[in-house]
Amino acid sequence: MSDPQPPALLSQRPLDNSRALLHRAVDLGLDFTSGELRDGLVLRHATARELIDRFAQPVPVAGTSDEQLLESLAEIASWSISQADPRYLAFPDTGDSVAALAADIVATFLNQNLIAFDRSAPAASVIEAQLITWLRELVGYPVTPLADYQGLASLGGMWTSGGNMSNHIAIAAALAHIYPEVREGGLRAVPEQPVILLAGGVEHFSYLAAAQALGLGANGLLWADATPNFTSDPASVALLLASPPPGKRIFMVVGVAGNCRTTGIDDLQQLADLCQKHGVWFHVDACHGGSLLFSEKLKVQLAGIERADSVALDPHKGLFVSYPSSYALFRDPNALGRFARYPDQADNPDCLDLGLITPFYGSRGFESLKLWALMKHQGTEGIGRLVDARQATYQRMVDLLERTGCFRMLGTSDFYRCAFVFLPDQVARAMEEATVRPELHTSVRALVSRYTAAFAEHLYRSGTVVFDLFALQDLADRIGLGAAAKYQVMGMCVGHPHIAEEIAHAIEQTLLDASRDLTSAMLTDIHSLLTATNAPSREAAVDVTGPAGW
Amino acid sequence: MSDPQPPALLSQRPLDNSRALLHRAVDLGLDFTSGELRDGLVLRHATARELIDRFAQPVPVAGTSDEQLLESLAEIASWSISQADPRYLAFPDTGDSVAALAADIVATFLNQNLIAFDRSAPAASVIEAQLITWLRELVGYPVTPLADYQGLASLGGMWTSGGNMSNHIAIAAALAHIYPEVREGGLRAVPEQPVILLAGGVEHFSYLAAAQALGLGANGLLWADATPNFTSDPASVALLLASPPPGKRIFMVVGVAGNCRTTGIDDLQQLADLCQKHGVWFHVDACHGGSLLFSEKLKVQLAGIERADSVALDPHKGLFVSYPSSYALFRDPNALGRFARYPDQADNPDCLDLGLITPFYGSRGFESLKLWALMKHQGTEGIGRLVDARQATYQRMVDLLERTGCFRMLGTSDFYRCAFVFLPDQVARAMEEATVRPELHTSVRALVSRYTAAFAEHLYRSGTVVFDLFALQDLADRIGLGAAAKYQVMGMCVGHPHIAEEIAHAIEQTLLDASRDLTSAMLTDIHSLLTATNAPSREAAVDVTGPAGW
Repeated sequence: MSDPQPPALLSQRPLDNSRALLHRAVDLGLDFTSGELRDGLVLRHATARELIDRFAQPVPVAGTSDEQLLESLAEIASWSISQADPRYLAFPDTGDSVAALAADIVATFLNQNLIAFDRSAPAASVIEAQLITWLRELVGYPVTPLADYQGLASLGGMWTSGGNMSNHIAIAAALAHIYPEVREGGLRAVPEQPVILLAGGVEHFSYLAAAQALGLGANGLLWADATPNFTSDPASVALLLASPPPGKRIFMVVGVAGNCRTTGIDDLQQLADLCQKHGVWFHVDACHGGSLLFSEKLKVQLAGIERADSVALDPHKGLFVSYPSSYALFRDPNALGRFARYPDQADNPDCLDLGLITPFYGSRGFESLKLWALMKHQGTEGIGRLVDARQATYQRMVDLLERTGCFRMLGTSDFYRCAFVFLPDQVARAMEEATVRPELHTSVRALVSRYTAAFAEHLYRSGTVVFDLFALQDLADRIGLGAAAKYQVMGMCVGHPHIAEEIAHAIEQTLLDASRDLTSAMLTDIHSLLTATNAPSREAAVDVTGPAGW
Repeated sequence: MSDPQPPALLSQRPLDNSRALLHRAVDLGLDFTSGELRDGLVLRHATARELIDRFAQPVPVAGTSDEQLLESLAEIASWSISQADPRYLAFPDTGDSVAALAADIVATFLNQNLIAFDRSAPAASVIEAQLITWLRELVGYPVTPLADYQGLASLGGMWTSGGNMSNHIAIAAALAHIYPEVREGGLRAVPEQPVILLAGGVEHFSYLAAAQALGLGANGLLWADATPNFTSDPASVALLLASPPPGKRIFMVVGVAGNCRTTGIDDLQQLADLCQKHGVWFHVDACHGGSLLFSEKLKVQLAGIERADSVALDPHKGLFVSYPSSYALFRDPNALGRFARYPDQADNPDCLDLGLITPFYGSRGFESLKLWALMKHQGTEGIGRLVDARQATYQRMVDLLERTGCFRMLGTSDFYRCAFVFLPDQVARAMEEATVRPELHTSVRALVSRYTAAFAEHLYRSGTVVFDLFALQDLADRIGLGAAAKYQVMGMCVGHPHIAEEIAHAIEQTLLDASRDLTSAMLTDIHSLLTATNAPSREAAVDVTGPAGW
């Protein structure tokens, strides 16, 4: 080893030596992106146990060389999965904007602390404030241009570490607005049970987690119905708002602008009308749908979002920006001012200490630079073109799925994600011809789930095509075995604006090949099931494995 | 412009074109680190208003060239502050480990989603689990080596976005442990007021924020006394544990291992004894002190930390790693298992879906790679040497401060931070000779605060030396105007293992020059104050401006 214990810090090393090392880190990243480090696969698959055996080691007491460090990082990369690969179709977090990557690299060196302006983050605080006003403008909220900055109380938004926290903070702000006494006396000071109204079956896990963490408990959620399109049913919401259960007060209604399973988008105007009528806080979870705000053509799907009291945006989802990049925005610019530790500072036009109005965050880095850089580099028009192109690509990929004759859609949406089971035409025909007896429904559902999981797992382990895999209720009864039935389903999420023709073709071939291998076995199984006199009544083993199952 | 609207995504661009751009992002970062972009200053100072005028612009509709993007990033960098500059002495967040920087660059490209193993973050989940076992071992907790991984319920720790959240999650875990019914019924199901016991005057702001956000309210905090050394007073803690106020139940005691103002370290053994005796959850906030765990020589100061039920570590503080890098660890490896959404998965040795046990976080990036890389690159021995060297540098810098005769220490500690006012020897002598009459105390305190702030602000605006500036109670009555008096103080925090002799000398000269300019004015003011018959009784205007004031 030429350098058995190289110096640790930039200041201890010749600048050009560090430069060479850090350029190689970039090259390593690009080798990952290009696929070279992954043998050209979306991932080289290994189980948790196999990777533990490969990487487990005692606490390193002695150090290692620069060279060895880079080799270790390359080894880790070689067992990582590429969300930016066009054959990765499980989740939209591609994170591959070159401007965002450049900005993130610069931000690492800057290491500004966004808790405060003075002594911590002068320019960075201004850039983050700027970005928040831009995002407010895209949502359609009233905006004070940054040039006319009036103080933190007029900012009306904040960066957060993810959609989970953006939703959480929106709920916290709603609670603080409606129950100001909670800051002093806690929830025990509240005479009624505050509840959040949201539709079951299309909800994100963060609402239950937030209700528990905020001290509301699971009892703090009240469930409305979902429509067969996997959206919140306004009629059900109206009914519950008109007559909430005794002892409970609905303080928030959640509108979903792109649910995490099929990206169905709620009728936000109707929900806004209902919330206005009843004087209830309206939160729009646009973590998935927010990217549509950049498209002149598609943003109509979000009409009414500007009437929400709070909006969660998640640019690390579907906006080509790496983690963490999420934002909670508020129609009332002073919604976050209620969290200010020094409330008199919130109206000071010379104060830009963001830490004053960012609950849950103290010292934190310059994560907002990357979205700022993407907007600067591409402009809203350029980003809009990417979003439009992705939508067209998504439609082409849905057509591709349909064309194979291998799948049955449970939910499609106008947006970038759909959910489906493995149900080849021959198997579907066999089921129709035999008209499945009710006592066999459970077993048939289990069979469909099992083959769907097997299909997805086969592709995933081969590293050739990655679909999401999770559990979903067949709300529209597309399989025909009841709208209450839950299946293991695949999700296809197209995060990529462009999938080259030859790659789409390869994906299609891979699907057809995998289907061929499974179809005859599935046909045999379904025949013996449908003709058996004493079919075992087995419920589907519905597991959660992919990112959207959360 | 050669490329008026360059393609946005890596996949749309020639690889070598992206490579060149991203190498230049690294170079830009190094130009910031070296000082070239900052005119050789810690920062080029500008007010919030000036920077707003410089950077404010409408939402960009059209994009811009690569070149223009880099220029914008350079412009932002040139108005940023360098926490890695040895003359930056306000906070310990240097973030300048070359291994951590390299790892962070790689992590940006990998963009793994640590919510889950399959389809999201295979190798990354293993590396993060590995790091958590390493950190547990350093704390002295019982450890299951990663090679013997038993499932998430045996992991006992998680990454968080900052010390604020690490403390918050520790409190949430304590609440979930003591009041399991809260998950369902919320805090309204609890018959008593749960309270956290902590010492006033040395507390971090995160405890009040967490109590409010968790639904306990400010009433959920119970204040013990601090000692003159700015540590929690065990006698006061003992008294309150023995007889808590009626209707309140103390469910957690906070031990502070390095407070954020003077880094005084509590007697953790005594606090652990008390908590054990009373069966109360013991949390140790080691956000500042945690780096001492790496030093064989210094870790004795943290003796007893291994008896804590939870520990907050903050490697982005004092461990040369950029934001965000923070960890919450738990003695009971299953403390986080209580948050699992699918509890049966927590004991599955094949499941490494970290999202199951990371409350507040869903999709999130591979932030743990940088600390893993630093530990790999330097080993615990190498990091220990850095921590030891920093301690020696800190002592040298304290000597330097004392030698100038310009300052009066309010609190020194055995660790890397001290707090002091501007009180030149001549002024102190004048005060002693005149023996300040009690009715003048308020005015003299205001005067000392005013000159301290002026001194710190002068240095800060010149960009030559940056001390922290915040408010502190003179608990040991070092100024002699009462232990209840609060002053505007400067903080010196030495995050740097090495400060070159010539730089230390330049700092000393800068301090002496600035002092010379202020001392005669201060002398005049103090004389006229001490001899005036009707001195105006003016309270000190105590402001919070620096990062530790939070």
